[in-house]
Amino acid sequence: MTEDTGRARPRVVIIGGGFGGLTAARTLRNAPVEVTLLDRTNHHVFQPLLYQVATAQLAPSDITAPIRFLMRGQKNATVLLAEATQIEPERRVVCVDGEPGEVPYDFLIVATGARHSYFGHDDWEPLAPGLKSIGDAVEVRRRFLLAFEEAEKTDDPVERQAYQTFVIVGGGATGVELAGVMPEIAKNALRADFRRIDTRNTRVILLEGGPRLIPTFPQSLADRAKRDLEKLGVEVRLNCLVTRIEPDAVYAGDERIPTRTVFWAAGNAASPLARSLGVPLDRVGRVPVEKDLSVPGRPEVFVVGDLATLTQENGKPVPWVAQGAIQGGRRAAQNIECDLRGRPRRPFRYWDKGNMAVLGRARALAEIGRFRFTGFVAWLMWLGLHIVYLVGFRNRLSVLLQWAYAYFTYQRGVRLISDPVPRMPDETAVPGPPSVKTGP
Amino acid sequence: MTEDTGRARPRVVIIGGGFGGLTAARTLRNAPVEVTLLDRTNHHVFQPLLYQVATAQLAPSDITAPIRFLMRGQKNATVLLAEATQIEPERRVVCVDGEPGEVPYDFLIVATGARHSYFGHDDWEPLAPGLKSIGDAVEVRRRFLLAFEEAEKTDDPVERQAYQTFVIVGGGATGVELAGVMPEIAKNALRADFRRIDTRNTRVILLEGGPRLIPTFPQSLADRAKRDLEKLGVEVRLNCLVTRIEPDAVYAGDERIPTRTVFWAAGNAASPLARSLGVPLDRVGRVPVEKDLSVPGRPEVFVVGDLATLTQENGKPVPWVAQGAIQGGRRAAQNIECDLRGRPRRPFRYWDKGNMAVLGRARALAEIGRFRFTGFVAWLMWLGLHIVYLVGFRNRLSVLLQWAYAYFTYQRGVRLISDPVPRMPDETAVPGPPSVKTGP
Repeated sequence: MTEDTGRARPRVVIIGGGFGGLTAARTLRNAPVEVTLLDRTNHHVFQPLLYQVATAQLAPSDITAPIRFLMRGQKNATVLLAEATQIEPERRVVCVDGEPGEVPYDFLIVATGARHSYFGHDDWEPLAPGLKSIGDAVEVRRRFLLAFEEAEKTDDPVERQAYQTFVIVGGGATGVELAGVMPEIAKNALRADFRRIDTRNTRVILLEGGPRLIPTFPQSLADRAKRDLEKLGVEVRLNCLVTRIEPDAVYAGDERIPTRTVFWAAGNAASPLARSLGVPLDRVGRVPVEKDLSVPGRPEVFVVGDLATLTQENGKPVPWVAQGAIQGGRRAAQNIECDLRGRPRRPFRYWDKGNMAVLGRARALAEIGRFRFTGFVAWLMWLGLHIVYLVGFRNRLSVLLQWAYAYFTYQRGVRLISDPVPRMPDETAVPGPPSVKTGP
Repeated sequence: MTEDTGRARPRVVIIGGGFGGLTAARTLRNAPVEVTLLDRTNHHVFQPLLYQVATAQLAPSDITAPIRFLMRGQKNATVLLAEATQIEPERRVVCVDGEPGEVPYDFLIVATGARHSYFGHDDWEPLAPGLKSIGDAVEVRRRFLLAFEEAEKTDDPVERQAYQTFVIVGGGATGVELAGVMPEIAKNALRADFRRIDTRNTRVILLEGGPRLIPTFPQSLADRAKRDLEKLGVEVRLNCLVTRIEPDAVYAGDERIPTRTVFWAAGNAASPLARSLGVPLDRVGRVPVEKDLSVPGRPEVFVVGDLATLTQENGKPVPWVAQGAIQGGRRAAQNIECDLRGRPRRPFRYWDKGNMAVLGRARALAEIGRFRFTGFVAWLMWLGLHIVYLVGFRNRLSVLLQWAYAYFTYQRGVRLISDPVPRMPDETAVPGPPSVKTGP
């Protein structure tokens, strides 16, 4: 059943079905190549909306689409659900777990992205989950919702306040968006649901190690973000380094903040797959790539998205955002086509389409070229752009429906804790996710 | 913050937020009582649509709603997220895991339902998951979708066919609905997505131990169901007992059916909580209740829904369906109100509103009083009724949207495998669900 063309066509293997990998695969749709798109999950995630899954506004299926479904019409492409464990650039194969064991390539595009970096404190990860995958988002959602349940149960006022205190580490876009939405949910959506706790007493604390929020934005918008967050009730602390995380507290410098729920939105660590490329990596494990996005000394291997690092002509690195991955994926694929047609490769130039971040309910910041927008106008722009960029007609409709519902009712539709309480021993045989307590 | 009325009001504790428990709690909304509704999950599940979550048509959040949210307007009710581990009828307390440890009651309504029974073969459960909770449905969905992925990967035609063979054990409504939808998904929704396998070669086998399908329906509709399923491509085998389940095969009598994916829709085992009531139970662990739904010798304890068994005047048991639980919950609550007003209790009479089951795409069976409907008309009735009965405005809109999408595109919108491939050791720190392989 395999469409066998006698291996005349070069094999392009793409690792990762995120923005970079998916764009690369689609760019090659008419190229005389055989594309294999590898991912360890079956779905593409629209990462900019992950924080909305984490805060129970959208369902996981609203911001995901099966990679196989997205690629169904592309006859020169095969999708493989498998985890790439190793790249062997000398032999030009990618090793995967399970069948088929090895996937040989003529060209390789690595687009596996990044995970959070805990700056040498990997033991913090179980206490402070990050927000990179659907699994992460569901875990954050579970801890966020469960904290209110535990607060409602306890009779100890100190413990209750600790359950009603949420600490977010990292003041980039993810941290700001996550922090901005939490007070509103506590004060509006959840207020009438509880009998013993007053959800208006919820504290949301945003800790940023640097001197300002959202470093990819201009200073004026960062100041505005801080003011807007503070108006929403978020306690923003700048120049504030986390020194320790325990099950019932975070240490900001010397101060102990009692909390049962910490979320991590600071720092990136590149996917460990990069190590097998055999080239020097940067401090956080990224691959410094050539101007054409290829790996130094390996013209047939490209790295795009959060796993790559490249300095632009203005001296700044290409930012690690969705647009960087999308444009990089497209350029890498085009450079493969250049090779096939005997044309010279073209260097990657990042086109800054602007920056956006949402602040709570119906408010946002946007920077597009020389223009800056704030408040409701920026939010409408954000909304329109995200609907347009969201993959798939069904998802767009469903997301619009959920947003309209949240906007008009102040409610959150997806307040689902999938498996909060450990099951009884005689009912555990159907495997479910492990029940990890938010506290000790 | 607790609304303390000096404990003058009788305390009604309800265990279980399914159809029975939720209806009981709502029936008591104006009664001079303090209601505590206990559930080990935070959500009510609309069980009749679980099979649509299992087959990727609806998202878990489409058919669930937070119990707390549903009860928010009822000032005499408190919701507690906790698992009842034991009932001590002498002391009139319910023991729960975690705080508050014990919940005292003056009246108790037990509505914890049933799990599947494996007829003494509990070791089959990991190999053949059932379909009672959202966790179950997500697990069935995962195995169903993953089987096609594994079939696509393997080069062995025998193994490939085993991955493309789905066996459903049990020919009740759940088994019939699950079986009916699978061939259509394989043949339409998934066909263009795969390159190596032909999804039209998918086998769906429905095994029923008794002489007919859907025993709660009249014989003529059972015959129709069998014919309709066979037209859809389901292999229906009656009088066929499962003797053994292995990771790569099911034994139907002496015949070995190679398969990697078995789903269990046969038999009920009542919730083990019933044992602590200290009364004799029936063969599957149900509580035989009095005509007023109370436990013999314990007039302050009621049992409703799938956990109770009661013979109607026509000699048949009250059926273990949603309507039985809803009507039972209402009657138990009303009988508590009768006690409070010094009126005699009234016996429970089940009003049979009819029976419905969906067969594949846009086809159903319905029995309403003396009338029987089949095909598209029955499906439209089914659709209307389920939308009306579904809890919550947001869910109704979202479900209608998903159904319209599936109807017009032949697609399934929620083909999400949350965590299919085991993560690399250095990325496992965020706890995710365990990756259970469908095969050995």
